[in-house]
Amino acid sequence: MHESILEKTEGRVSYHDSVEEMLKRIREDGMSNVFDRWALQEKIRCKFCLQGLSCQLCSQGPCRLNEKTGQDKGVCGIGPDAMAMRNLLLKNIMGAATYGHHAYEAFRTLKATAEGKTPFTIKDINKLKWMCKSLGIDTNQAENQMAIQLAELLEKQMKIDSEDKNLMVEVFAPKKRKKAWKDLNIYPAGVQHEEQNCVASCLTNVDGNYKSLAAKALKLGLATIYNAQIGLEMVQDILFGTPMPHEVNVDLGIMDADYINIVFNGHQPWVGAATIEKAHMAEVQEKAKSAGAKGLRVVGSIETGQELLQRFNIDDVFVGLMGNWLAIEPLLATGTVDVMAMEENCSPPAIDMYAEKYQATLVSISTIIDIPGLQHKIPYSPSKVDSMSDNLIDLAIENFKKRKGKVKPMVPKIVQKAIAGFSTEAVLQALGNKLDPLVDVISAGKIKGIVALANCSTLRNGPQDWNTVNLTKELIKKDILVVSAGCGNHGLEVAGLCNLDAINIAGEGLKEVCNMLKIPPVLSFGTCTDTGRISMLVTALADHLDVDIPQLPIAVTAPEWMEQKATIDGIFAVAYGAYTHLSPTPFVTGAPKLVKLLTEEVEQITGGKIALGDDPVEVANNIEAHILVKRKSLGLN
Amino acid sequence: MHESILEKTEGRVSYHDSVEEMLKRIREDGMSNVFDRWALQEKIRCKFCLQGLSCQLCSQGPCRLNEKTGQDKGVCGIGPDAMAMRNLLLKNIMGAATYGHHAYEAFRTLKATAEGKTPFTIKDINKLKWMCKSLGIDTNQAENQMAIQLAELLEKQMKIDSEDKNLMVEVFAPKKRKKAWKDLNIYPAGVQHEEQNCVASCLTNVDGNYKSLAAKALKLGLATIYNAQIGLEMVQDILFGTPMPHEVNVDLGIMDADYINIVFNGHQPWVGAATIEKAHMAEVQEKAKSAGAKGLRVVGSIETGQELLQRFNIDDVFVGLMGNWLAIEPLLATGTVDVMAMEENCSPPAIDMYAEKYQATLVSISTIIDIPGLQHKIPYSPSKVDSMSDNLIDLAIENFKKRKGKVKPMVPKIVQKAIAGFSTEAVLQALGNKLDPLVDVISAGKIKGIVALANCSTLRNGPQDWNTVNLTKELIKKDILVVSAGCGNHGLEVAGLCNLDAINIAGEGLKEVCNMLKIPPVLSFGTCTDTGRISMLVTALADHLDVDIPQLPIAVTAPEWMEQKATIDGIFAVAYGAYTHLSPTPFVTGAPKLVKLLTEEVEQITGGKIALGDDPVEVANNIEAHILVKRKSLGLN
Repeated sequence: MHESILEKTEGRVSYHDSVEEMLKRIREDGMSNVFDRWALQEKIRCKFCLQGLSCQLCSQGPCRLNEKTGQDKGVCGIGPDAMAMRNLLLKNIMGAATYGHHAYEAFRTLKATAEGKTPFTIKDINKLKWMCKSLGIDTNQAENQMAIQLAELLEKQMKIDSEDKNLMVEVFAPKKRKKAWKDLNIYPAGVQHEEQNCVASCLTNVDGNYKSLAAKALKLGLATIYNAQIGLEMVQDILFGTPMPHEVNVDLGIMDADYINIVFNGHQPWVGAATIEKAHMAEVQEKAKSAGAKGLRVVGSIETGQELLQRFNIDDVFVGLMGNWLAIEPLLATGTVDVMAMEENCSPPAIDMYAEKYQATLVSISTIIDIPGLQHKIPYSPSKVDSMSDNLIDLAIENFKKRKGKVKPMVPKIVQKAIAGFSTEAVLQALGNKLDPLVDVISAGKIKGIVALANCSTLRNGPQDWNTVNLTKELIKKDILVVSAGCGNHGLEVAGLCNLDAINIAGEGLKEVCNMLKIPPVLSFGTCTDTGRISMLVTALADHLDVDIPQLPIAVTAPEWMEQKATIDGIFAVAYGAYTHLSPTPFVTGAPKLVKLLTEEVEQITGGKIALGDDPVEVANNIEAHILVKRKSLGLN
Repeated sequence: MHESILEKTEGRVSYHDSVEEMLKRIREDGMSNVFDRWALQEKIRCKFCLQGLSCQLCSQGPCRLNEKTGQDKGVCGIGPDAMAMRNLLLKNIMGAATYGHHAYEAFRTLKATAEGKTPFTIKDINKLKWMCKSLGIDTNQAENQMAIQLAELLEKQMKIDSEDKNLMVEVFAPKKRKKAWKDLNIYPAGVQHEEQNCVASCLTNVDGNYKSLAAKALKLGLATIYNAQIGLEMVQDILFGTPMPHEVNVDLGIMDADYINIVFNGHQPWVGAATIEKAHMAEVQEKAKSAGAKGLRVVGSIETGQELLQRFNIDDVFVGLMGNWLAIEPLLATGTVDVMAMEENCSPPAIDMYAEKYQATLVSISTIIDIPGLQHKIPYSPSKVDSMSDNLIDLAIENFKKRKGKVKPMVPKIVQKAIAGFSTEAVLQALGNKLDPLVDVISAGKIKGIVALANCSTLRNGPQDWNTVNLTKELIKKDILVVSAGCGNHGLEVAGLCNLDAINIAGEGLKEVCNMLKIPPVLSFGTCTDTGRISMLVTALADHLDVDIPQLPIAVTAPEWMEQKATIDGIFAVAYGAYTHLSPTPFVTGAPKLVKLLTEEVEQITGGKIALGDDPVEVANNIEAHILVKRKSLGLN
C-alpha cells in the first residue's frame, strides 16, 4: 500500500462511518471479521504468489520460480510469464463462468415467464421487440412466443462454436471493432465454448505460451460480455423494466429492527423481485404484524440490491440498498436481519457465526451457493419462484420471533440519498433521444471524457472504498464524467457521490452539464454485470461518430477489484480497446514480458491496455492525460 | 517420498533404462530437463501449497492458513477444508474441460466424416448401429445419416442442463447406481453445464462449504465420464475401429534416424490416423527417399500413440509407441524426430530448446496447444485433416534435410513387445462372447479381483513409473488382474508387463487364466480417456451379476497421477463406487475434515473412497484386503 494512503487513513478500515461504527460492536463481541482477518494475513503473504510465480496444478508441483537461484522454470518447464498469465486466465474463467451461470438463469427465467410458469410478466415490451428485431426474430407474433424464441436464441448463443455465427457480437459490438477482432483471431465463439477452451488450455502441459494464453483471455472477455452479460441484462430489463433514474436510500441506516427484514444478497434479482411484489400484499404485512413486527421489509444487499434498486421504487416495503460486500458482516451485526437470501457472490463463507450471534437465518436460493452452517437450501428454479418467496417470508417471520428480545439491535443512524437507475436509454432520454448533445459537450470540453468505473471493494489498497471514492472525486474535479457499476458503485452511492449534491465538487464544465441535465456527476449504471450495459453506451457513441473505440476520450477503471468477475471485465475492456486502470496490481509482477505485453505492447494490438497505480491522484492524472491525447487526435482541445 | 523407495532407486530417475541412457546425453549437452528441474524445485516447495492451504484467487489474498498462529481463515472467511477442496475442484474442472474439448473434436469429426468432409470413413458400422440403437436413433437409415444424428446427439448431451434427460447416463451407467446418484443429488447434467456450475462455484465467496464442493466434484466426475469420455471413445471406435489385441513395439528403440519421423503427441488420433494412411502411399515414401531418407515413418507418443497403437498394426510406416510423457525430452534428444505434432497434453512448455538443439520441428495441430518458440500452428479442423497431413509431411521432409548431418543421432537399443488393444468387446470375444467365464474364474478365486489402473507418470513418489510398475507386479502376484490405461499403461508396456512373458510373474491362479486365454496379466486398455471404456466392462459385470458397483471385488488405482485429468478420473471412480487409490497424496492434508470425508465418510455415501499410500507393497496389500472383504460379502472365498 502507498505510504501516503496509510498516513491519511490511519486506523480506519472503511471510507464509511457506518461500517466503522459496526466494526466496534463486532470487535467487542469478539467476532472474526474480514478487516481483522486481513491484518492477520498481511503478516504471512507469500511473495511468490503475489508475483504470480507459484503453481499448484500438478503433482510434480507445487513449484515456485526464482530466477536468481536458477529455479527459472517449473518442473514441467513452464516459465514465469506463462505461469503468471495462466494463473490470471484461470481467474478470468471463473468470472466468465459466473456471468454465464447468471445468464443461464436469466434466459430460462424469461422462457418460463413466457410459458406462464413464473409470477413475472414481460414489463418492457419495447425492449423485447427491439431485441427480437435486432437478432432477426419475427416480431409479428405473440409476445410470449417472441420471448420464448429470444430466450432460446440467447441460450444457444452462449454455446455456439467458432464455426457458428456469433449473432450477439455482430449485433452489439462496435462496427469498427469486429474486423479488428477477426484480424487478431480473438473474435469469440459462445462463452461456454471459450470457457471450455480456456480451462483446457490451463491444464498442465497444454498452453505454455503467455502470448497465446493472453489472447485466449481477450477472446473470453469478448464472449463473456457479448454472449452472456448483454443478453442477460437485456432480459432483466424485459422482465423488470429498463432502469430509469430515481432517488433511492442507501447505507446501513435503512435497517429497522422493528420490522421483519429479508435481505437479498448476490447478483440475481429473481426472488427478490418476486418477494417485493408479494410483500406489498396486505395479508403478508398482516402476518408480519401478528408476529409482533411493524411489518415486513425487503432490503437490497450488494449487487442484487442494486439490480432491485435500478428498477423498483423505494417505499414502505423495499427500503433500499445497504452497501457493498465488505458491509455484509457489519449488516448482520446490526441484529436486524431475519433472512439473508443468497444467490451468487459475494456470500462470504464465515457469516454463519454472525447468523448465530445476531439471530439471522441464512438461506441459499441458488444452485451454486453454499457456506458452512447453512440452514436452508432452496435451489433456484424459475417455476418455483413463487413458493420460494413464501418460504423466505415464513422463515423470516420465524426468525423474527427468535430475534425479538434476544438480540439488541444496533443501527448506525446514517441514510444516504443516491440517484440510481441509469442506462443507455435513460441517458438518451435525458439528452432528448439523441447523442449529439453529449457529443457537443464533449467537443466543447465541458466534459473532457468519460470514465467507466466497474469494480468491487477490497482492503488491499486502503480502507474499503477509499481508493474508489477518492479517484472518482479526482476525476469529476477534472470534468470527467464517471459512469459506475459494481460494488464500487455502491461505495460511491453510500459516499454521496451519486446524488445532485455531488455536483458541487465537480469541475466547472461538468458542473454546468450536470446542472443543465439534472444528473449527478457519477451515473449509477448498476452492477458489475452492467459492464456490458456501459459498453453499449460507449459503442453507441463510437458508431454515432463513426470512430473506433480506441479513438474515444474514454477510459475504464477498476480501482478496487477484488474477485474474478472484475478481472474478466477488465480483460474485456482491454480487448474492447480501452485504457483500463486496475488496482490492486494483479499477481503478475514476477513476469516481466507479460507485464510489458499487458501494459504496453497490447496497445498496438487491440488499442487498449492495462494501467496500474494505487494512488488516486496519480491515477486520475494518468487517465486525464490519456483522455487529452485522444481528444487531441480527434481534433478537440 | 518413502525412504525405502529412495534407497532402492538411488541415483535413478526412471524405471526405464532407455530414459536413463538418454538423460546422460541431455545432461552432457547441458539441457534443462524435467528430472533436474524436479530436483531444483524439491528445494523450495511451499508447505502451505502442499497442504492445500494456500489461495491466490482474489486481490485480498494470497492467503495462507495456519491454525497454530490464529490464521485459521482466509480474509474472505474461508476455512481449510473448503480452501483445499476448492483447489482440488479447480483441478477436476481442468480435467473435465480437457476431456470435453476432446469430445467436441470427436463429435464434429464424426459429423464431418459422415458429410464426406474428412479422409476418414466409418470403420465400425456395428458400433455405430449399437450406439444409435442404445440412444434411440433410428437405425433404419443410411449410415451417414445415422452418424450425423449420433454426432449431434452426443454434442447436445454435453450441454444439457439438469432439467433435461441425461441419456448417456441412462444408457451407460450401472443399473443400480442411477438411483443412488439421484438420491445423493449428484446425478449429473451435461459436462459443459456442470463445468460452468463448478467454475462459478469456485469464485470467491460462492461456495465455502467443503461438503458441497466435494459433491459438485463427484457430479462433475460422472458428467465427464458419461457425457464426454464414453461418447468420444465410442466415436473413435466408429471411425477407426474398436480396439482388438495385437502385438506392438514400444520404447525409444523404435526410432531410426535414417527415416523421416513424424511423431504424434497428445491424446487425439485424427491427424495421426490420417498421416498413417497417407504415409502408406508410394509417392510419399518416394518423396522421402528423394530427400535422402530411407522412408517416412509415423511414431506414436504418449496417449495419441496409444490411440493409434490400439487400432493400427505395426508395420514399415507406423513403428509403435515411444513411451509416456516423461520420455518426451529423452525422445527429442535422440536426434531422430523431424516433426513433433501436438494436439493436447502433455506438450511440455520447454521443449523448444530440444527442438533447436536436436533439430526437430514443433507443430501445434490443435486449437488449444501452444508453447514458447512454436514454429507452426495448424489448428485442427475436421475438414482440413487431409491438408494438415500433407503439411506435416512437407515440414518433416524439410526438417530431415536440416537434421541429416547436423545432429548425431543416439538411440537406445531397446524395443519392448506389448499386447495392446483391449476393450470390453475384445475381452468378451476372448471369453466366447459371454461374461460367465470371467465370473467363474473370479468365483473360483483364480482371479481374486480386478484393478483398473488409470494414471500418468510423476516424479513425486519415485523415479518415472517406479511406483506404477512395482504396484502392478505386486497386484498380479496376488492373482489380481490389472486393466490399465493412461501414461501409466505405457509405462507398463515399456516395462514388459503387457506381454505374455509377464504371465510368469503372476500368481498361480492368474497365470492359469492368462495361459488359457492367451492374454497378459495386464490388459492394455488404452489411454486415460479410456477410463470410461474400463468402466463399461465393470458396469457390464455388475449388471450381469445384478449387483451394485461397491459390491464387486474391484479397485481403482492411480499410482502416479500427475495432471488434472487424472484427478477427475479419480473423483469419477469414487462416485462410481470404487475403492480408489491415489498416489501421490493430493494437496489436501491440511484439511482434516476433508481428508476424513474423502478417505472414510464418503464410503457411506457413494460406496467408494480414496485410499492413500506411496509404498507399492503396502498399497497392494490394502487393495487385496479390500477385494477380499468384497469377495466375502458376495459369499466367495
